[in-house]
Amino acid sequence: MATSPIWASRPKTRGLVLDLIRAARAISRVELATATGLTGATISEVVRELMGDGLVVEAGRGAPTGGKPRTLVQLNPSARYSVGVQLERNTCVIVVVDLAGRQVARTSFQGVASLPPQQALPLLAAQVDALLTTAAVDRGKVLGVGLVSYGPQDRRAGVLLTPQPTDQWLDYPVAGRLAEGLGLPVLLDNDAAAAAIGEYWMGAVDPRSTYGCIYMATGIGGGVVVAGEVYRGSSSNSVEIGHISIDVNGAECPCGNVGCLENYAGPSALVREAVATPGLAQRLALDPSAADFLTEFARLAAAANAGDRDARDLIERSARYLGSAAVTMASLFDVDVIVLAGPSFAVAGSIYQAVIQQEVDRRMFARRAHPVRVVPSVNGSDAAAIGGAVLVLQSELTLGHARPEDGARPVPASTSTAP
Amino acid sequence: MATSPIWASRPKTRGLVLDLIRAARAISRVELATATGLTGATISEVVRELMGDGLVVEAGRGAPTGGKPRTLVQLNPSARYSVGVQLERNTCVIVVVDLAGRQVARTSFQGVASLPPQQALPLLAAQVDALLTTAAVDRGKVLGVGLVSYGPQDRRAGVLLTPQPTDQWLDYPVAGRLAEGLGLPVLLDNDAAAAAIGEYWMGAVDPRSTYGCIYMATGIGGGVVVAGEVYRGSSSNSVEIGHISIDVNGAECPCGNVGCLENYAGPSALVREAVATPGLAQRLALDPSAADFLTEFARLAAAANAGDRDARDLIERSARYLGSAAVTMASLFDVDVIVLAGPSFAVAGSIYQAVIQQEVDRRMFARRAHPVRVVPSVNGSDAAAIGGAVLVLQSELTLGHARPEDGARPVPASTSTAP
Repeated sequence: MATSPIWASRPKTRGLVLDLIRAARAISRVELATATGLTGATISEVVRELMGDGLVVEAGRGAPTGGKPRTLVQLNPSARYSVGVQLERNTCVIVVVDLAGRQVARTSFQGVASLPPQQALPLLAAQVDALLTTAAVDRGKVLGVGLVSYGPQDRRAGVLLTPQPTDQWLDYPVAGRLAEGLGLPVLLDNDAAAAAIGEYWMGAVDPRSTYGCIYMATGIGGGVVVAGEVYRGSSSNSVEIGHISIDVNGAECPCGNVGCLENYAGPSALVREAVATPGLAQRLALDPSAADFLTEFARLAAAANAGDRDARDLIERSARYLGSAAVTMASLFDVDVIVLAGPSFAVAGSIYQAVIQQEVDRRMFARRAHPVRVVPSVNGSDAAAIGGAVLVLQSELTLGHARPEDGARPVPASTSTAP
Repeated sequence: MATSPIWASRPKTRGLVLDLIRAARAISRVELATATGLTGATISEVVRELMGDGLVVEAGRGAPTGGKPRTLVQLNPSARYSVGVQLERNTCVIVVVDLAGRQVARTSFQGVASLPPQQALPLLAAQVDALLTTAAVDRGKVLGVGLVSYGPQDRRAGVLLTPQPTDQWLDYPVAGRLAEGLGLPVLLDNDAAAAAIGEYWMGAVDPRSTYGCIYMATGIGGGVVVAGEVYRGSSSNSVEIGHISIDVNGAECPCGNVGCLENYAGPSALVREAVATPGLAQRLALDPSAADFLTEFARLAAAANAGDRDARDLIERSARYLGSAAVTMASLFDVDVIVLAGPSFAVAGSIYQAVIQQEVDRRMFARRAHPVRVVPSVNGSDAAAIGGAVLVLQSELTLGHARPEDGARPVPASTSTAP
């Protein structure tokens, strides 16, 4: 048991006020007092402190409400930055975002994760360095790096518990090594959980809602957010929706389970099926030996959009399988919204959205209690990388300070940052 | 947004202290101060208040630790009572528990829920009255009734959103009518969620753990508890594990989904299969037309225990289907423990436990992160009814007061209680 109760901790108040200012864009101290239930004096003190740290600035006056006009406060977006790095089998995306979560720089490149981590991480660090330099971001203002990748993970230790993409990545201290290479704290997290929290931070969902995210890149993952916080479970290895069974009599998956969603609905399975469909592979000039099957998958998705019957059948079937898993997510987590995020929803997103919505409407257990909306991600293909950066902002500025018992703090860099 | 923040509310402190006293059985004020991080003065004041209300009493002295021996405080179990009512298609179970959650009276009877609610609820109220009288419980000390039944539900309104067991139950204000009949507040909740919270209250699981419960009576439900609180989701219609699809190509279920777990692994499906297995139905003298198929199922489970090959095959197959759903629960909610609760695990529980444990060990996605233990419920067949009573204790004594924004408060009785 923690020695200090969380509701008595001052940083929680600070984090709450900062989060309200962020969400409201511009808000008066009186409104902050009303929203938090804190006294005007406490709010004034917290706001003074936030202004002293440069996180918040005054921003003109609000509409008069009878008394004297109220001074509004807002975030100072350029006061802090964070970096999101998404490590995928085929692609690595790096983004830099400001305190408001807005993207100020982005780069992506291929192939890093197919190298062993000893070679990959220095390359990654060099890319982050180059991006920060190009964007002219003061490194002293960078809070840290959110490194997001596959599950399962040991999030506290900053270690991947999977032999993906190559055996050498299993148990390798990815967060610690990247932190050393960059001289910045690094927080390891699940890519789909990151994508989910990014939606909240960007204001795309009601902060009081419970919502899920299905994330599809080369694999399929998931995340659930309850009242602004990622549902973590016991070890932050939750919502692994790509590896739930949709067919109890299905084939065995390398993960140990049988009939996993990913093997029915994921890009790799679809490209394999497309290649086996007479005529389709030739028509789309699919290369069955392509190392990067996401490119082949994008071609298939584009053909489905353009009305190719065979391509559309395959995408719709994939969407129905995803719909079945979405129904499971809705019936277990009782969500209001399911967000579809990640690069593999980018091309044929509207087909996926329509079919998954249909399945949920028809099959969810508690549909008499409330509907569930299926929506595309506001962050699109880069949802995971942006979410990784947002997790650092959230951890450093709000929840992190308030919840020392929650475990996963960024792995600190052992070398100090050059100012 | 609530006008008063929950961490500033005094009732939360009171609830926390009461919960610590309950969990510790006997504890000193100094230990309470250490555990909560509150000052000695605050603890003394809260304890004085709890003693004034008769909820807590002094209980001798603890072992000396250098200074003067410390006076211990403990719950006064007979200070308050609550009632749990489980309404099932075939059986109704009523329990009365004391403040420590210990059962002081129990009754069960058949057939109530197959009547329309207009007739069933007065019968139910009469049974609760009779049980309280028999047990000589002072009605002035009864906090309320936890009525637990099928999902989906509108928990706030106290209404079932299902045409089960008969069409008349759909949208009928069960909680309100029962409250009127009894002159006691009634809290409606999901039977499986109740069973799950009962495990925590009885001290069967680590209070910091995340655990799931699979509840099997005539149907199959589920609950997940995170740090002592039921995972609710958007509308408290979460963890409906009996109606997740285990076969995407399976038959349609009346609920709207296809290939629902319940239709493969539940008692009704098993009795149907047993009847269709040549020789088995005759050997066990199964009655395919029995209204109460749970009795037939118990016979099948007993035969499996006794070594009947056909019976054992059926129970093991049912357990493998449940194992598949348990893997889904573990991979989505990332639980440490899965509790098997409810009357349909009572007879062949050890077969179920062994097979489900095997499936989880072999197939759970994050098994590298931590193991998941499959255990029988400490509350056995009555887990849901006991859990219903516990939910009332928890709502009234701890969480309820602290979370006015959480919604589901007991539906108050419109007639007052005779003292």
